[in-house]
Amino acid sequence: MFKINQNYLKLQGSYLFSTIGKKVRTYKEENPDKNVISLGIGDVTLPLAPSIISALHRATDEMAAKETFKGYSPDLGYEFLRSAIAKHDYEARGVQIAIDEIFISDGAKSDSGNIGDIFAEDNKIAVCDPVYPVYVDTNVMAGRTGEFDSTTGKWSNVIYMPCSKDNNFVPMLPKETPDIIYLCFPNNPTGSAITKNELQKWVDYANEKGAVIIYDAAYEAYISEDDCPHTIYECDGAKKCAIELRSFSKNAGFTGTRLGFTVVPKELISDGVPLNNLWARRHGTKFNGAPYIIQAAGAAVYSPEGIAQTREQIDYYMNNARVIRDGLLEAGYQVSGGVNAPYIWLQTPNGMTSWEFFDHLLQNASVVGTPGSGFGPSGEGYFRLTAFGTYENTLEALRRIKNL
Amino acid sequence: MFKINQNYLKLQGSYLFSTIGKKVRTYKEENPDKNVISLGIGDVTLPLAPSIISALHRATDEMAAKETFKGYSPDLGYEFLRSAIAKHDYEARGVQIAIDEIFISDGAKSDSGNIGDIFAEDNKIAVCDPVYPVYVDTNVMAGRTGEFDSTTGKWSNVIYMPCSKDNNFVPMLPKETPDIIYLCFPNNPTGSAITKNELQKWVDYANEKGAVIIYDAAYEAYISEDDCPHTIYECDGAKKCAIELRSFSKNAGFTGTRLGFTVVPKELISDGVPLNNLWARRHGTKFNGAPYIIQAAGAAVYSPEGIAQTREQIDYYMNNARVIRDGLLEAGYQVSGGVNAPYIWLQTPNGMTSWEFFDHLLQNASVVGTPGSGFGPSGEGYFRLTAFGTYENTLEALRRIKNL
Repeated sequence: MFKINQNYLKLQGSYLFSTIGKKVRTYKEENPDKNVISLGIGDVTLPLAPSIISALHRATDEMAAKETFKGYSPDLGYEFLRSAIAKHDYEARGVQIAIDEIFISDGAKSDSGNIGDIFAEDNKIAVCDPVYPVYVDTNVMAGRTGEFDSTTGKWSNVIYMPCSKDNNFVPMLPKETPDIIYLCFPNNPTGSAITKNELQKWVDYANEKGAVIIYDAAYEAYISEDDCPHTIYECDGAKKCAIELRSFSKNAGFTGTRLGFTVVPKELISDGVPLNNLWARRHGTKFNGAPYIIQAAGAAVYSPEGIAQTREQIDYYMNNARVIRDGLLEAGYQVSGGVNAPYIWLQTPNGMTSWEFFDHLLQNASVVGTPGSGFGPSGEGYFRLTAFGTYENTLEALRRIKNL
Repeated sequence: MFKINQNYLKLQGSYLFSTIGKKVRTYKEENPDKNVISLGIGDVTLPLAPSIISALHRATDEMAAKETFKGYSPDLGYEFLRSAIAKHDYEARGVQIAIDEIFISDGAKSDSGNIGDIFAEDNKIAVCDPVYPVYVDTNVMAGRTGEFDSTTGKWSNVIYMPCSKDNNFVPMLPKETPDIIYLCFPNNPTGSAITKNELQKWVDYANEKGAVIIYDAAYEAYISEDDCPHTIYECDGAKKCAIELRSFSKNAGFTGTRLGFTVVPKELISDGVPLNNLWARRHGTKFNGAPYIIQAAGAAVYSPEGIAQTREQIDYYMNNARVIRDGLLEAGYQVSGGVNAPYIWLQTPNGMTSWEFFDHLLQNASVVGTPGSGFGPSGEGYFRLTAFGTYENTLEALRRIKNL
């Protein structure tokens, strides 16, 4: 008699964004005349840049001719893409990453879930609170989190590192020592950034304790301040303790095009075993590469035109972020984020819970955001708005919010 | 101190295709004048069909315009694709599969590895021997296989179901009861097919024992005989015990384009828990959809032009299969497969081992195939040739083999 993975039964509710989706659908059905503006899910809205479109067409034509057709991709991904990444994302920042330390994938969500496979079940994880739900949920599935306490909203075997306005939404080193530390900067959902000096403390801590850092840098392209590192490998010793996750979703609009990569440095070793080897084995066994066409499009992101065009898109979104931030401040909200990240994190007014404010905003302004409590207990009383709408919609949403 | 997944250290070196690569490189260096023909790796060679290319261009153009740009895909995949699958792959064969029983993915390799996530560690698996290595390797990673015995080439906690000419390469029901049964028909590597009557016995057995069947039907498009089922759901009761994996790699040339799907029927229930829910949760949490462009290309496979054009490609490959099969029979080999599958499985002559025959073929005919022993202990003494080469190369390879 086969047995299911009982850990799945511990998973709480349904995935945050599906719940939001259902509420919005219901509202739209009941209010067909209302123009609902979503500043909710972190999904981009600008079309792919012209240089990326050209690369997709070119690569498609290659797939149409026998001489240039591409079958299975190399295990780690095409070298043309890994070389471009090594050069532009690392060498240009004074960091040497070898091309066989880079693993092309179908996106950072898959990688952030799958990376857990190479670790034993009995590792204790530490997460920021609030946090991107995938880190915790995938560890629930893997049996690492203990039991859920519905009173506190916490898992018994997870170290929560609260991020609030008291610590400027950057966690303090935990009292209890974790084995695996998830960090995401610029942060989803709070929009906060970390300085190089602060991140160096985490790297030193991880190296001292023998912990590994899973560093999600999916939003690095949004950094506007000089003292914020774009990669954790700007910190000394990070290659000995950190895995970095990167994405093409937010810097180049690939949310529906799917491309990402993970860096596992060869210096990251456990008991003589390089984690690079383990991830290479997982990658080669449970994955068969991102589509050639998409990898070709990814390389176009690093062309001179691609760099200029995607920069323009990021500037467009960051202008929205400014509109949201300034508008909320004007309306008297407590606001953070929006400077080095496309996320604005606001405190709900009048002691409303996050979900109460969600309903309030949807019902009275037809604006969709994301309840902070969906990201963890310390997110209660907070709310996330994203800069990924159109400029016009963002303006209109803020007009409505100011009139609430 | 973080701990790695020790199961990874048990994995046996996956040297099969790298060893082949090395031997071929050495041979080419020593024989620069020889034209080496590979009928080895199961990768397609024909370019994508014109209707698929058109769909890729069309979808790319959609990604270029704000009005038609696509961000995150629906969790299960686009409905246009799932509807086409439900209609053409199932309804057309008298099988009703709901569109929320179909999960679009980046390919059957990922799915065949990832599906293990929803099962407990203490399930005993049964595999055919020889077998596609991914089934076993991913279960090694999950800790289900026990210890490897290098003398027998077997894992202590795996039920091996030998497939040889004695049973026409279709396994007999195992003596020991398994929890999870991996079946792949038409089969890689042996090229054998299973009749509906024979498969019904497996379905009945699984339902009787409370086992689940992971049914890999990646090669169903190659079936030419009427009594072979294209989907396991043609068998009565299969929805209560079987998960089906499907691929666009071999029927439409998507090895480098990456698309597949998995069917998890709602009737498949363990202790009141539908496995459909578990897979939906995994799919929504650890995956973010196949690219829109690729899903659009997948839908084109089901258009009238797509059906005709991909049929032509399959016919081309199956003509190669016929050339290989007839040529080998003429040359006095014992041959199976090649009728309902693009793989031809031959017995090595004169008691040669699989690797001895590999060297013999490479040295004396400049032809590359795959040693059967690379697929499991019962593959020893066998050899795989694939029909995915060009017609001209296939003819020439067989001419050389006949002259050996």
